[in-house]
Formats: sequence, C-alpha cells, structure tokens
Amino acid sequence: MNRMEKILRPRSIAVIGASRKEGSLGNMFLQAILRMNYRGEIFPVNPKADAIEGIKTYPHVDALPKAVDLAIILLPHPFVPDNMEALGRKGIKNVIVISAGFREVGPEGAEREKQLVQIAQKYGMNVLGPNCMGAFNTDPQFSFNGTFSPTLPKPGHVAYISQSGALGVAILELTAQTDLGFSVFVSTGNKADLSDNDALEFLIHDDNTRVITLYQESIDHPQAFRRICSRLVPHKPVLTVKAGRTGSGLKAASSHTGALANPEHIVDGFLKQCGVIRLDNLEDLFDSARLLSLQPLPAGPRVAVITNAGGPGILASDAIEQAGLTLAELAPATIAQLKSFLPAEAATGNPVDMIASANEETYYHALQAVAGDANVDSILLIVVKPPVNTTPATIIRRLAPLVKKIDKPIVPVVMAQRDDTFGREVFEELNLAVFSYPESAVKALATMWQYRRIKERPTHQAEETPPPAAALSALQPGASGQAALADLQKLLKAYHIPVAPYRISGDLAELLSFRREQTGPFALKAANEAVIHKSDQGLLKLGLKTDEDVERAFNEMAGKLRLILPETEPPLFIIQQQLPGGLELVLGGKRDAAFGAVVMAGVGGIFVEALKDVAFRVAPLSDAEALDMLNDLKAQKLLDGFRGQPGIDRSRFARLLVNFGRLLHHHPEISEMDLNPLVWSAEQNQAVVVDARATIRQAI
Amino acid sequence: MNRMEKILRPRSIAVIGASRKEGSLGNMFLQAILRMNYRGEIFPVNPKADAIEGIKTYPHVDALPKAVDLAIILLPHPFVPDNMEALGRKGIKNVIVISAGFREVGPEGAEREKQLVQIAQKYGMNVLGPNCMGAFNTDPQFSFNGTFSPTLPKPGHVAYISQSGALGVAILELTAQTDLGFSVFVSTGNKADLSDNDALEFLIHDDNTRVITLYQESIDHPQAFRRICSRLVPHKPVLTVKAGRTGSGLKAASSHTGALANPEHIVDGFLKQCGVIRLDNLEDLFDSARLLSLQPLPAGPRVAVITNAGGPGILASDAIEQAGLTLAELAPATIAQLKSFLPAEAATGNPVDMIASANEETYYHALQAVAGDANVDSILLIVVKPPVNTTPATIIRRLAPLVKKIDKPIVPVVMAQRDDTFGREVFEELNLAVFSYPESAVKALATMWQYRRIKERPTHQAEETPPPAAALSALQPGASGQAALADLQKLLKAYHIPVAPYRISGDLAELLSFRREQTGPFALKAANEAVIHKSDQGLLKLGLKTDEDVERAFNEMAGKLRLILPETEPPLFIIQQQLPGGLELVLGGKRDAAFGAVVMAGVGGIFVEALKDVAFRVAPLSDAEALDMLNDLKAQKLLDGFRGQPGIDRSRFARLLVNFGRLLHHHPEISEMDLNPLVWSAEQNQAVVVDARATIRQAI
Repeated sequence: MNRMEKILRPRSIAVIGASRKEGSLGNMFLQAILRMNYRGEIFPVNPKADAIEGIKTYPHVDALPKAVDLAIILLPHPFVPDNMEALGRKGIKNVIVISAGFREVGPEGAEREKQLVQIAQKYGMNVLGPNCMGAFNTDPQFSFNGTFSPTLPKPGHVAYISQSGALGVAILELTAQTDLGFSVFVSTGNKADLSDNDALEFLIHDDNTRVITLYQESIDHPQAFRRICSRLVPHKPVLTVKAGRTGSGLKAASSHTGALANPEHIVDGFLKQCGVIRLDNLEDLFDSARLLSLQPLPAGPRVAVITNAGGPGILASDAIEQAGLTLAELAPATIAQLKSFLPAEAATGNPVDMIASANEETYYHALQAVAGDANVDSILLIVVKPPVNTTPATIIRRLAPLVKKIDKPIVPVVMAQRDDTFGREVFEELNLAVFSYPESAVKALATMWQYRRIKERPTHQAEETPPPAAALSALQPGASGQAALADLQKLLKAYHIPVAPYRISGDLAELLSFRREQTGPFALKAANEAVIHKSDQGLLKLGLKTDEDVERAFNEMAGKLRLILPETEPPLFIIQQQLPGGLELVLGGKRDAAFGAVVMAGVGGIFVEALKDVAFRVAPLSDAEALDMLNDLKAQKLLDGFRGQPGIDRSRFARLLVNFGRLLHHHPEISEMDLNPLVWSAEQNQAVVVDARATIRQAI
Repeated sequence: MNRMEKILRPRSIAVIGASRKEGSLGNMFLQAILRMNYRGEIFPVNPKADAIEGIKTYPHVDALPKAVDLAIILLPHPFVPDNMEALGRKGIKNVIVISAGFREVGPEGAEREKQLVQIAQKYGMNVLGPNCMGAFNTDPQFSFNGTFSPTLPKPGHVAYISQSGALGVAILELTAQTDLGFSVFVSTGNKADLSDNDALEFLIHDDNTRVITLYQESIDHPQAFRRICSRLVPHKPVLTVKAGRTGSGLKAASSHTGALANPEHIVDGFLKQCGVIRLDNLEDLFDSARLLSLQPLPAGPRVAVITNAGGPGILASDAIEQAGLTLAELAPATIAQLKSFLPAEAATGNPVDMIASANEETYYHALQAVAGDANVDSILLIVVKPPVNTTPATIIRRLAPLVKKIDKPIVPVVMAQRDDTFGREVFEELNLAVFSYPESAVKALATMWQYRRIKERPTHQAEETPPPAAALSALQPGASGQAALADLQKLLKAYHIPVAPYRISGDLAELLSFRREQTGPFALKAANEAVIHKSDQGLLKLGLKTDEDVERAFNEMAGKLRLILPETEPPLFIIQQQLPGGLELVLGGKRDAAFGAVVMAGVGGIFVEALKDVAFRVAPLSDAEALDMLNDLKAQKLLDGFRGQPGIDRSRFARLLVNFGRLLHHHPEISEMDLNPLVWSAEQNQAVVVDARATIRQAI
C-alpha cells in the first residue's frame, strides 16, 4: 500500500489542537474539514473542551476511542513529540504535522525534526510535514480537506503537490473563479518523512487525478523520482514549476564541464528524461493543467482558428508559430463549405475570420466545417464580445450539441467580461477550459501537444549494465587528483569510446619511434598537467610529418615548457595521430551531489566556450535520451553538416554518449571529466577522442 | 493644430445614422456617448425621427444648425459618399467613418475608399477610418465616447491606439475589473487618411496621457513614426504589440543579407531605434502600461522583495534575474532594523520573508525599513492571503500613509481572491497597480526599468548628410545587376570604408605585378560571378607569398574554372593582400519596401550562417544606434576578444556602420549589398572589407 493512502483517503481523523476559538488555527482547521462535508469520522482533541462545533471532543490522544486512520497535529512545536509518542502507542500510523519550528528555523529546529523522525520510525508511522499546509482530496468518497485554506477547493482532476504551502493557498485563491478543479493537494513542508515521490506514487492509481502539477524548489531522490515518473508519465501528464533558478553562482571548477554545469541546466535535462514538462510560471502551469484535465489530446500540431475579429486571429497565428505548433491548412472542401455561408468580407483561410457580424449560427456552421477537416488537429475558438445580435453565452449554448460530438480539443478564447452574458456554466458543463487571451490559450495547447509526444515516445529505459571487466582495473585504486592519461585511455576503450592513437613521453626518441610506427600527420602537444590552454601558449603543433618536423616542434616547445614548469618537473609530450579534420565535439562528465553522474555534450570550439551551447542528462541514459539530448544544442546545422563539412551520424554518436554515461555511472570516483575535443571521423563513422582529462576525487 | 484635435476633443458632435431602435448600432452608439456624460452638444441625424433619447434629431446633414466639430458616420457604405459631400459643403472638417465595406473587402471596396479620400481632400477634411471602432477621450473636460463598446472605459492615463477595433473592445472588456485606466483610445481602421502617426502626434501634448500603448499590424510611414517617437519617448513611454510575425516565408534573395532579412527582425531593430518597447503579448502590454501610468520610474535595477511566504519570494527572485533586474543587497543597517522586529524564523536577506505570522504592523515596519535603504530602487510587496490575524485590506490600509511618502515604485502582488477582504479601493486610492502573480509584476517592473534607460539615452539623432562627391560617380548610371567590384571599391572609399588592396584580372602577369607592388601574403580567388562558395570549391587559396605560389594557384584554379564556366567566359581572378587574421565580421544592406535602407551586422562564419546571429537597423543611424546594434548580437564574447584573439574597438566599428548606413541611404539603387567578410585589423584598429557584392536594381 502506498504510504500516502491513509493520509489522502482517511475514514477517520483526529484533529489534535482543534479549538473553539473563532479565528484560531485550531478552529479554522476543523471548520475547513466540516465545510467540505467530510465523509468519515472526526475526533477533535483538546484538553479544555467537551465538544467543538457540536462534535464530541477528547482531552488527549490516549482518550481516543480508536486508532484513527489519520491524526493531524496543529499544536506548537514543544507539544509535538509527546503527542507523536501518544499516537504511536495508540497504533495510529498516519500523521500530518502542520506545526512549524523545525528544520526551517535552524540547527535547534533541525534537532527537533530529527527527534520527530525517530519517533515515527520507532512506531512505523507515515508523517507528512512538519511545517506544512496539509493536504486535501476532493474525491467524493472522502471529500477530505486537511488544510486551513479559507477557500474550499473546487473538485476536479488536477493534483497539485507543492513544496510551498503558501503557494497552495494562493493558487486556490487565485483560481477560485476559473474552471480549474483539483483532485488532490499535498503540501510537503519540510519533507522530514514523506516527500513528493510518495505523493506521486499515490497518484499513479488515483483514478480521480488526470493531470499532476508540481511546485518544486528541489528534486529529492532524483533516481526514485525518475522511476516513479516512468510509470506515471505514459498515463498522466506531469507538469512542474521548478523554482530556485537564482543560484549563488557556480563554484570554481577544475574542468570545462564543471564550469558549464549550471544546476538549472542539469535540472532541465533531467526533467526531460523524466518526461516532466517544465513551465515558466504558475499561470502557465495551471493554464496547461486545466486544459489537459478537461480536453482530449490533439493528434497533431495543426491548429485551426475560428474568430469573429481579425486582430485576435493574427495574435493567435503568431503565438501558434512561436509555440512550435502549425496553422492547419484547411482542405478545399472545408473552404468551399465556409464560403457557402460566410459573407464575402470574411476570410476563409486559417484563421477563419467570420467578421463582427457572426452570430451563434455562423459559429455553429464554422465549427462544424472546421472540426470535420482531416487537416485539423485542434480548434481555437475566439469570441470577441460581439457588438450586436448575440452574446458569448448564446453562442456556446448553440454550439453545445456539436462540441459534445467533436473528439478534437476545442479551446475557447472569450475576450469579454465574466458577466451574465458570458455563459460560464455552459462552458463548465461542456468541459471546456476558457481563456481570455489567444496567447495563453496557444501556450496551453502547445503543452498538450508536447505531452502527446512524450506519451508516445519509447518507454525504453536506460539499461543498468555491470561495468566491463577491463574498466575495473583501469583507474589506479586510491588515486586522487588528475587521472593519468594512459589509465583514461584504458577506461575509454573498455567502454568502446575510441581514442586517437598516441604516446606520452618526455623522450624524443620514443616520440619519433611512435611516428615511424603510425601513419601521419601528427600533432605534438605538451602533456604536463600544468598546461591547460595549449594552443594559446604555442604548446600544440599540428601537421607534423617527418622526424625533422617532430624534432623541431619538440625543441621549441621544450624551451617554452622549461620557462613555465617548476625545475623539478621535466617536460612531457603527447604525440598523436592527427585525424582528418571533422566536426569537433565535446563531452563532459560531472558528479553532481544531487543527481549523481551527469553527462554534458556540445559542439567544440566557440560553441561550447563562447556560447555555452551544451546539453545535460543524468546517467545512465538510453539511446533515445541521448538522441534527444543532441536536439537541445543550438548548433544543429553543424551536426547535420555545413558548408562542405559532413554531418555526424547521430545514432552512432548517441551510442557513444550512452557508453560514456555508463562509464561515469560506474565510476563514482570520477568527479569531473572532459573529452575535449572529440573529432568526428567520417572514415570511421565515429567520434574519436583527441584529448581527455579527469579528476579523481576519492579512492574506489 | 494636430489633425486629431477635434476628433478627440470635440465640443459638438453629429451622429449620422443615430437610431431609436434598441440594440441597433445607431442606438448603441448614441447610448455610449450619453452614458459617459459627454460635455458637448449632440446632434443626431436620422430622416425618420424627430428626437432620439430625448435629443432633437435632424433629418439630414444639410439641416444641421451649425458646422459641428465632429461627425460620426454609422451608415452602410452606399450612403457614405453623399453624406461626406454634405459634410464638406457644411464646412464640417472632422469625421469618423465607422462604416465597413471598403478596402478590407477587396478591389471594389478599395475603389470606394479612394472616392472617400478624394472627397476628404476636396474639402480638407480629417477622416478616421473607415471600418473602425471609433475613438474615446476620458479627459473630464470632454468625456467623449465615440465607440459602441458596451463597457465604458475607466478613466486613467493610458492611451491605446489599435489597428484592430475588436482588440479595443476586447481590452476594455478584459481589463474592466483591473486598475487599468484609459485616457484616449483610437481605432485606426483602414487608415485611409488619419493613421497611428496622427494619433501619436496628438498625444505629445495630451497632458492626460502618461503612457502610450499600440497594437500594430504594420508600421506605416516609418520615417514619420520615428520622428514623432523621438519627440514622445523622452517624455512618455511608448509600448507596442506588433502582430503579424507569421510571414509567408522570405522571398528568394540574391545575397546573404536578403536571405537573413526577416521582416520581423527589421521591425525589432527599428522599434529599438525609435525607443518603442515591444512586448510579447497584450497581457504584458497592459500590465506594463498600468504600472507605468501609476508609479514613479525606478532609479536603478535593484529590487527588494517583501513577502509573508517563501515560495512566492523564490519565484520573484527567479523572475528578477531572468528579466535582467537584480535582487537588491540590503544594507547592514536595514537588516539590523528588520531583525529588531521580525521573528527568528524570518529571513532578513532579500527576499525579506516575514513568514506567515506577519500582520499589518509587520508589513509596515518592513516596508519602512526597506524603502529607506539606499541600495533599493523598487519594492515588490507580496501578500499571500494570510491564514489568520489580518487581511490584504487591513495591511494596505495600514501601509497607506507610508506608501504616500515613498518615491520609489512599489508593486503589490496580492495572491488572494478579489473579495471584500482585498481592499481594492485602497490600492486605487494609493495609485498602486496590483498583480496576482510575482512573475507578471516583475515583467512589468522590468519594462519600467527598460523605459528609464531609454528615457536617459542620448537623444542625438542620426545626421542626414549629403552624399560625398566621389560617391555620386562611383556606380555606373543606369547599370542593373551585380555591381562591378571596382565601382564598389570607389563607393566604399567615398564613405571611408577601407578595402583590402586587390586587383582583378584574368591575366597572370597582371596578378604577379600586383604581388610585386604590395607586401604579402596574398589570397587568390575566382572572381567570376557564377562562383559563390569559393572555399568549398577550392577556388580560394591563401598564404601565397612568391610568384611561384601565385602561378601554381592560378593554374590549378583556372583548370577548375574551365570545367565550371561556360566556354565563352574566361576565368577571372582577384589577388588581394591578405590581412593578418582578425575577427571576421559581416555587414549587409537591403532596400526594404517599407523601411527603406536597412543595415545588417553580424560576426562572420558560422555565426551568421548557421546561427543567423545578425542585427538590423534602419539607415541612417546614429553612433549610439550603431553601438546598440552590436549589443543585439549573441557573439558578444567574440567582439570582446576571445582566447587570444583581440576584440574589436566597438566605437570605431560603430562609426563604420554609420558610414555604411549613409552609403545605403544615399543609394536607393542598391537593392542588396554584402560586405562579407570584413576582417578586424588590430594594426589599423579598423575593420577592412575583404569581399563585397551588390545588386543594383534600377538606374539612378
């Protein structure tokens, strides 16, 4: 059974700290439960009252006549531990702790929170909070309101899990007059015990919930979150506002990858892997949610716009293009049909501008014509308050029988006051989500289309494979600091990541012998750890063919290195087979405290360095995820081949990314790693690593 | 006198087509005038009535007792010409034609519109419309409502000029319950005579208007628009939603510049030159307008956030960073002051999170402390519906005396229902613009800060200079097609745009003699017009030093050219002094049908070609505009110098841009022009043109 089951579906509740005093928290809370007509039993607990709101009241938890499904603690924090103990003794397993004064107030509170968790563990309790706003479930079987929100939730099919209790209350307030209806709300508070993940897991089987919205300030236990999302997302859309983009700046990092790894970009990549749609703000979140909860998904991106005014139609067209949707191209038959009843001044393309004289009959015939067009996946129905003849209410009433038969999403945009002529009740009856502006309607429609594609993407998960045997011995156990290049090469080979042939040595003779063994041309570069930007310092020479070329470059660079390096450190060189110039790519890896192994990919040179054009995913990643990751890059044209330079084979490169992700996942001791550059070899149809660096933080 | 003067400030009006019939256009219109308590005289005209709504009515224009200030024609289009003639004979000079059925319905209507304009010209009339929704002016001296909007406008200081009449009515409807108040509304309709520009000119001296909003589908007479904006913008912000981004695709173009010249990017650049702020959608437009019309401008970007809940504070912080504003760093004294009265659990940084127990006194002291901090330029005041103790209304009432004294913008975000506890009347009395979500409040605040910077930018206009004498003879008169390179060089020199020394010839001996005259190295490239991507085809050789180098390259390329070129066309070459490799830049010019000469700038190579990273401005442009144009580019890091490559001198390059703009402005016969590439020469501290192409369309 899910750990949230009895918290969201209690048949009996004890309200510890219920109060008779009007305006007090303890009274408001009880009132809220009563006002929503809770279907179960209520047991107020208060030592100073016999009855509150006409309900028999108990002086103490010990006095309760039974082990209720759920206890809600409203008392100030000093009273919490004793009451938790009492609940435990009584065999009450599910508790919501509203009380504040825990981790959120500093070390002393954190200590209190630890104590609370210990008690919960001792008795095997499930605890929501502390410092939370509670939870509700509008399912008519329970009709349970365990929050002190002054506004009752409107029943519906959107679940909302919020890390901020205030943003729960605020959203109920601000959406009270809209068509947004909620199924379940959970304020997770300090998440001392139960977290977002438990709530999400509950929602997998909550038939009353069709859409899930999240307000997150952090993502806890990302691997569990990902696992639960993989079960949820194919059936119910999950939308989030992930706040906290404002960072305190990035810590100094020892690699490019480290410097580029903005935590929010990792979150972006991770949420994509999870199939969770990230929205920019709360308005967009709930606009999308109410549309998704009421209307069917579109089969494609083609939107038809029906309007009684030109301006809003143009705004809708702009928004459609900007959102990645397309204006449907109406079939000739549809256009002919429209022409048959529209005045000559009307526009019968898309948008269909029926002009201001349109009344309910015009809307009816236009909707009928457009909805029947196989080129149309969804319909935006714009009504500017008509100057004469009709009202929005009249129009929607006339459309009702038609709307019920159409299985494509219909999104009404009614640019009129919400007064008597608006017809709100008809829109509600028809399960239509109404918008005031075309732009916000289109944004919500775009989220629908985005979810449709997520729903249909392959559910294939990243495989968890054991590390190859060769990889286990590649890195020196217990090493710390920069990994030796030779070790890295072994490691990369173990994961089928090709490296351009090379040799490292401080000895000219050895470098020359490598030259003679291999076909050229060759690159010679400084290999001492202290040297980072080799090309800027003249410590990289390309196109070396003969022994003389190598020797000249060796001598020149050795001279420079002696000036840079400490006296004790001899110059060290890499000689490497130079690949015929292909597209330069960059891969990076980073051990993130929250997400574990993170993979970064980009196109080399200025794209990574000047434009920060990189994408992130959390390892391990599937082939599909790796391919999708490449789509995040701005440098698409370069990946496809550009001005004579051939493009890359995306599937092949994605495979390499998957292998690199495995490598990082298997080697938690690698804190940061750069493969920079890899060069795309058209001949090998493969990216080949030219240079690699890695920082090892801990012994294996 | 401005041509809109009597249309917006009429002392007497004739309503031609006024009607007794309830629900008819002619009745609604008269009702609208009466309902807003018009201060002047009204003369309904209707052949079938003696009085309408108790007002004496005249059978015909001829029967009017005087030449009224303004006539409004509501009649169907067949009756318009006769009535226009009658008005002209009567000496009535100002007319609003509401009637539809003109240019918007096709060629026949266009003919009717032409006739209408002819009558207007004959009598020297000012005509607004036809096919428009009318105009209103809430100035209490006039209180004139010449629209048939069922909703009366709320008086205020925002002017709204709309190319879509429906978006006038719709906005009145949708903002009726907000704090947005209007001064003037003009629906420009078909703009047969009066246009946006006339309305804008009127607003320069309309003291009742503090902020101007536009809905534009096109920008007519851009040069006049720019001139009027230069007078308006230093005193009143001008905000626009420019619709119609969805293009039918770009026409095939003979140059890079042509292919990159997306009309909307030109509009973007042009609006920046005008100091007009372009908003993404109508909600943002009117959110920004109501804040600008009610609150003082911030002195800087530093925002302080005061809140009673953490979540909204975090959302505000994210939005602040994203919008290019900054979170103010509170002074130690402010923090100490906050600590003196806030509970230990509160956060005294910024956001100041006073936690849920905050009541009106807490808000008072926090606002007092924060507003007095010299590090704070504006204040976001967030109120999530408090759980107990207080209400938004109580809080704002308590803050009133303080708010009146603070001269920094204060932006309240009240996340609560608009019910009795909201205090709407107090917010209105205090001239506060209230928002529901932190994100939209921050967006509006960012517009304020943007306007503040526009207001303070140098008002220096682009100089109109005569063409230099040398330029006049540079291009061959009457030529059409590709301009000769030699001519282009002359032209560029006349505008002080340096060109790398070169010679064009098909003769090896001549190329060699150039080599001997100049210092190398040299580039040799094919100069035949048919060759476009020289480097892809091996028709560009670099680093040639000796006669032998040049000869070898000549022979090799000549061989290739013979295979490409028609037999009759001999191979042609350019030999050119090769500049020491600096940053490659691109300039382009295009003759736009609407805007005239347009300048494009970008960083060469993949930036222009793969990322379309270019900026546009309309010529002539000032130095400040040219500098600002460079700020539009994504490749900022490259302009500043990157990995060993020196940056460019922006002022010097801006000067070159100004000169290039002049060149294009002076030469309307140039339809498209590419300077691609220019190379930044650190030695000359100047960009030098390496290759130039131009298409001449017409004889001079």
